[in-house]
Amino acid sequence: MAPSEEGAAARADCRDSPVSPARDTGKRPFRRVAIVGVGLIGGSLGLALRERGLAGSVTGIDVDAATRALAVERGCLDETSDCLSAVSGADIVVFAVPVGVMPDLMTRTQPHIDSDALVTDVGSVKRRIVAEGWRLFGERFVGGHPMAGSEQSGAASARADLFVGASWAIVPPAGSETAQDAASRIEMMATGVGGRPVRLTAERHDHIAALVSHLPHAISFSYTRIVAETDARAAADIAGASYRDLTRIAASERELWADILLENRDETLAAIGRFEAALEELRGALASRDRGAVNACLATARGMPES
Amino acid sequence: MAPSEEGAAARADCRDSPVSPARDTGKRPFRRVAIVGVGLIGGSLGLALRERGLAGSVTGIDVDAATRALAVERGCLDETSDCLSAVSGADIVVFAVPVGVMPDLMTRTQPHIDSDALVTDVGSVKRRIVAEGWRLFGERFVGGHPMAGSEQSGAASARADLFVGASWAIVPPAGSETAQDAASRIEMMATGVGGRPVRLTAERHDHIAALVSHLPHAISFSYTRIVAETDARAAADIAGASYRDLTRIAASERELWADILLENRDETLAAIGRFEAALEELRGALASRDRGAVNACLATARGMPES
Repeated sequence: MAPSEEGAAARADCRDSPVSPARDTGKRPFRRVAIVGVGLIGGSLGLALRERGLAGSVTGIDVDAATRALAVERGCLDETSDCLSAVSGADIVVFAVPVGVMPDLMTRTQPHIDSDALVTDVGSVKRRIVAEGWRLFGERFVGGHPMAGSEQSGAASARADLFVGASWAIVPPAGSETAQDAASRIEMMATGVGGRPVRLTAERHDHIAALVSHLPHAISFSYTRIVAETDARAAADIAGASYRDLTRIAASERELWADILLENRDETLAAIGRFEAALEELRGALASRDRGAVNACLATARGMPES
Repeated sequence: MAPSEEGAAARADCRDSPVSPARDTGKRPFRRVAIVGVGLIGGSLGLALRERGLAGSVTGIDVDAATRALAVERGCLDETSDCLSAVSGADIVVFAVPVGVMPDLMTRTQPHIDSDALVTDVGSVKRRIVAEGWRLFGERFVGGHPMAGSEQSGAASARADLFVGASWAIVPPAGSETAQDAASRIEMMATGVGGRPVRLTAERHDHIAALVSHLPHAISFSYTRIVAETDARAAADIAGASYRDLTRIAASERELWADILLENRDETLAAIGRFEAALEELRGALASRDRGAVNACLATARGMPES
């Protein structure tokens, strides 16, 4: 059975929203984009694609009825469904679900995806996801990771400008012209919504993401925990900017981050180990009141490359 | 010799700026405020007092000629001097120098301060400074700490709205009516420039400040250091908000922070120790792939009291 046939059959049982009136899609770079998972990232991507007129239509697939309704109300989507088969007919399929469920969902959705469609994802950890993507979709799969989350979550927080100026890590499939075309198309989508694509391997991504994102979250969650367990009220009473910055990072969804840290376990452990060694060195310098050593530990962020 | 006499004598050798034309000071809550040290905090305080018409005049004392000129140009001050004796005639004297030099400078300035003037400071650590302040000035000394620094420094970054909405820790002198009046006057100044005074003891201040400010800086400096020593360029390339938040905290003056961490050494060491234990627990949970334990470590900042 061709994917579109099974799709049509399966959709008889789906809760689909009415399809919006057809728009003039002649000049739009993408005909139909299907987004699986309509949270902050998926919702914002739909909103940005629609507001910028980049897609003929955007279909959002989510198991949660309230999320689907909200995403439509916010203008993120043209049509919605709770069935994976609704991806059929899309020329681009974007997986925007938590990393822990990504590989399984990709496997279950694969039979419904058109054989010439491009597939990408927005997961925070890349190795396992791209390996699975390439196994399922070959050169049509391009790993992606927009560095544009926030402490907000859900379609309710979707913003058309979420990706503006943000890096968008791209893990291209290896090899042929098809692979290069696939990567270029996904980069065009990233650029189209304001992102700044950066190509790298999955291994390099996971190494750097551990340092710039997963370690900061491990730090912030641990910091927030000791404040919450001791002096939360007094702390908030006299806190300044450094407290707000450090706790804001941890105002993220706990389950999502447990997923990410476990998924990138080895790199995150290595990054935590390096950080612990640096902090321990500072602690030692302070303990021995060695001003020169304290100064040496306080390499400043001044002069660091701008992100 | 009365302070004002010695002041007048000493000022013969001082580089004073011409005094601005007298303003109508009749309705201003403070007649003449002298600020010793015209950096970000001292400069911003002068600017705020002048813009809000709270002081008849503001005198800034700083050893650095360029700083004095800049502070005048920015509108922070009515007059400047490089001599401590220029504090004579002020009804409020504010020490706004790095904590490491504060006690010594207070001692050297004491002979020049009018015997009925109130004295306060803006230091980030309070125990040693208030002990010295009370020894030198008795009930006329009120410890203060506006939680309003930033990664910027110097009078060049002075802002009249720096204190708006910020907590301003107040360590009042103990006891009599004089002491209460002194604390109220300094609180009036803090409130006048937009701050939110919070009374507490020096011990309590230093304990909480270690948690909400000194530990975040120790963390941020250590984090920034490992990034700077390894993957700074690649990190900046794909970094998002958590990286920016965490490195911004450390874009502060290194010498200033070495001072602060050493001054509040015991409380900072204790806070670092508590944080290290929490992070180590998360590391252990990740290492053993124990999702329940990881979740338990990820206390979120959602629902934390607002600062």
